[in-house]
Amino acid sequence: MSLATDCPSSLASASERPLLSQVQLARAAAQHTATLPTAIKNAALEAMATALLEHQEPILAANRADLERAAEMVKAGELSASAYARLKLDAHKLADMVAGVRQVIRLGDPVGRALLIRELDEGLILERRTYPLGVLGVIFESRPDALVQIAALAVKTGNSVLLKGGSEALLSCQALMAAIQAGLQQIPEFPQGSLQLLTSRAEVKALLQLEGLVDLIIPRGSSSFVRYILENTRIPVLGHADGLCHLYVDRAADVDMAIKLTVDSKTQYPAACNAIETLLVHKAIAPHFLPLAVKALREKGVELRGDPLCRELVPDLIPATEDDWSTEYADLILSIKVVGSLDEAIAHIQQYGSRHTEAIVTEDAAAARRFLDEVDAAGVFHNASTRFADGFRYGFGAEVGISTQKLPPRGPVGLEGLVTYRYQLRGQGHLVADYTGPQARPFQHRDRLNNTGLA
Amino acid sequence: MSLATDCPSSLASASERPLLSQVQLARAAAQHTATLPTAIKNAALEAMATALLEHQEPILAANRADLERAAEMVKAGELSASAYARLKLDAHKLADMVAGVRQVIRLGDPVGRALLIRELDEGLILERRTYPLGVLGVIFESRPDALVQIAALAVKTGNSVLLKGGSEALLSCQALMAAIQAGLQQIPEFPQGSLQLLTSRAEVKALLQLEGLVDLIIPRGSSSFVRYILENTRIPVLGHADGLCHLYVDRAADVDMAIKLTVDSKTQYPAACNAIETLLVHKAIAPHFLPLAVKALREKGVELRGDPLCRELVPDLIPATEDDWSTEYADLILSIKVVGSLDEAIAHIQQYGSRHTEAIVTEDAAAARRFLDEVDAAGVFHNASTRFADGFRYGFGAEVGISTQKLPPRGPVGLEGLVTYRYQLRGQGHLVADYTGPQARPFQHRDRLNNTGLA
Repeated sequence: MSLATDCPSSLASASERPLLSQVQLARAAAQHTATLPTAIKNAALEAMATALLEHQEPILAANRADLERAAEMVKAGELSASAYARLKLDAHKLADMVAGVRQVIRLGDPVGRALLIRELDEGLILERRTYPLGVLGVIFESRPDALVQIAALAVKTGNSVLLKGGSEALLSCQALMAAIQAGLQQIPEFPQGSLQLLTSRAEVKALLQLEGLVDLIIPRGSSSFVRYILENTRIPVLGHADGLCHLYVDRAADVDMAIKLTVDSKTQYPAACNAIETLLVHKAIAPHFLPLAVKALREKGVELRGDPLCRELVPDLIPATEDDWSTEYADLILSIKVVGSLDEAIAHIQQYGSRHTEAIVTEDAAAARRFLDEVDAAGVFHNASTRFADGFRYGFGAEVGISTQKLPPRGPVGLEGLVTYRYQLRGQGHLVADYTGPQARPFQHRDRLNNTGLA
Repeated sequence: MSLATDCPSSLASASERPLLSQVQLARAAAQHTATLPTAIKNAALEAMATALLEHQEPILAANRADLERAAEMVKAGELSASAYARLKLDAHKLADMVAGVRQVIRLGDPVGRALLIRELDEGLILERRTYPLGVLGVIFESRPDALVQIAALAVKTGNSVLLKGGSEALLSCQALMAAIQAGLQQIPEFPQGSLQLLTSRAEVKALLQLEGLVDLIIPRGSSSFVRYILENTRIPVLGHADGLCHLYVDRAADVDMAIKLTVDSKTQYPAACNAIETLLVHKAIAPHFLPLAVKALREKGVELRGDPLCRELVPDLIPATEDDWSTEYADLILSIKVVGSLDEAIAHIQQYGSRHTEAIVTEDAAAARRFLDEVDAAGVFHNASTRFADGFRYGFGAEVGISTQKLPPRGPVGLEGLVTYRYQLRGQGHLVADYTGPQARPFQHRDRLNNTGLA
């Protein structure tokens, strides 16, 4: 595939070229970045980091313009105060962004890794080796610094990416992308068209139809936003719509630990998808635990809603309704239910959970083992806060998203979510006819390396 | 989740119970089989094998009844002769089926494997561990012995499965399933409802709508059949619609090797998805290679269609049209094109290939490396027949399907296609608050085991 060397910079062309040709340009670039040496990709990342610092003035000026317009939208009730806060960039945040890019340089390269090397027979060698996925589409609602993080992860993994941020951050995103492109242009081996900015909803709509040309969509935003994406594309989507997590306080829980874990899992960052929405409490421990937990949670400003059994122990709780069990508050609100058994806790979670992160607090090893074996979620925790469900905390060095689907990848996803694999078979003229029939030669199937974790 | 112990055998109930409750029964059973010890699963497989042999008479009698009806359909032109041949069971095939079940006993258990064990910090241990997917839906068009193989793979991997075979094999499938159920009933730990037979298209249609309750659909049949499935469900599908594979004979190919590889890749089993449909030949080697290859292919009864450049060298070829490049013949027909360069060969494959299996014949290591690096398919081969793309030949011991999607799993898929993973985090009351902010405790991220192949 030839590179479109006559193509103007992706920034100027974004509104002029139809989306299909943009994606084709991204595919052509991805063919090239798929085999770039790690050193070149790291040099590109360093060039991006340097350029971001050098372009600090235009970036912050563009951001101030976005903020002016956003302030008007907040006044008109069209934008929330928290969205305005997330929009704001300053020299400190820019330095954080740059540090983030430099951290990506230090991560291992997930491309070109051998997952399996197997000698099928003498001179017939099978390899399963990782490759970039190809072309990513990332649509994010929130802070403009997400653009820089995503661009860095795409460069590291040899993928092309078409990015769209929230419309309130348009000028900031354009300035950030201009800086990034200026940096990449310092690296002659790095092709044009690898990173492109989309700026309209119409372009996103068109992108979602390009299955076969775009390999993965990563939506970052509210549940309703992710659900819209899931319902409007056949392209594989990495992410989750819901984060409805539970903490179950077992009859054999250490009450003091249970209180601390409840408070951390709810209040450490309540808007996060891995914060708990419902607390389940075994009836045997509820009289001891519940009043203390309610006190600790109220000290943190949490609004509490309880079922009738809770309200027998703590009468002034707001009554919880059936809807509360299936509500992701993403706020300092927690629903509480008293259950009769571990079975009932597990059944409740299976019914209302979103397969994200579920936790049990107990000193009973058998109860913990049952919970961890039987609850079907991406993450099942014992005596640890649900807030640990995070790619950085898991030690991946990055997080491209959190997946709640059944098939892998599941849970917090690091760089491995942006790569796939291929089989390469090298022979010396080997024919299947020789391995078939009554005189069939047997296979040797001798592993030189097996990182598949299975067989 | 309680087992539905009052439920009648899945066979008698298949037509009486609505599909949703069948799937719920399968889910309940899967909760149980997910944690069965390997020894119990293997005992269940041995019981199945024994029961199949003990039920040989009713199985073959049912098959004879299917064959009688099928013979009428062949006469009426409603069924092909090859479908009739695939339908036929005898004592020998039954023995093969039983041997296949016993081979599955010998495979390693892919469930409960630790892919990652990482100490996030002292006393805070993260594990990524494999689990069954849950409930599979397998719809197959061809031979009734597929039922036995699929049932064995489901039992080995702790999954439940709802199976539907072709309508021409209805009585055979019912008899096979009855034998299998009789075997499983010998194993008290094995739950009811784990394996169920569906017998109507209406049931399949209903099954395809149950996303969230059914975890994976595996369609085995023609391209149009698989395409129908892909277009009518949101449940993940494992498989491929097309197998349009190429062999490229490079200018630096060993002509004798190239002829043998061409013949093997086309004729060893022409209906297979990994047989080649188009042969690409470098113009520099075509005058030497093509006449010899044509002779060898015609000796095997292959109908040849060539582009104009081919026909200059071998005038009596049928003219190939543009449609030929995108046709999967699944028969002894091969289209041939002469190309001017490796670039052109790669571009042709990128345009017309189905990302299944693509091969190059060459003694030029640089050309081979480029082909293997740049051609995006599940399998890219050098100097080996495309017919090696097969789970058994890859050494997996089983093949649940061949996947041509971009995301893993890709290519021939063994037992790992029927499992997923979960993260388990075990702590001692660890809070994320302690790892956040200016006094944040650092993570240790110390790996005890890392089979992820990455970071």
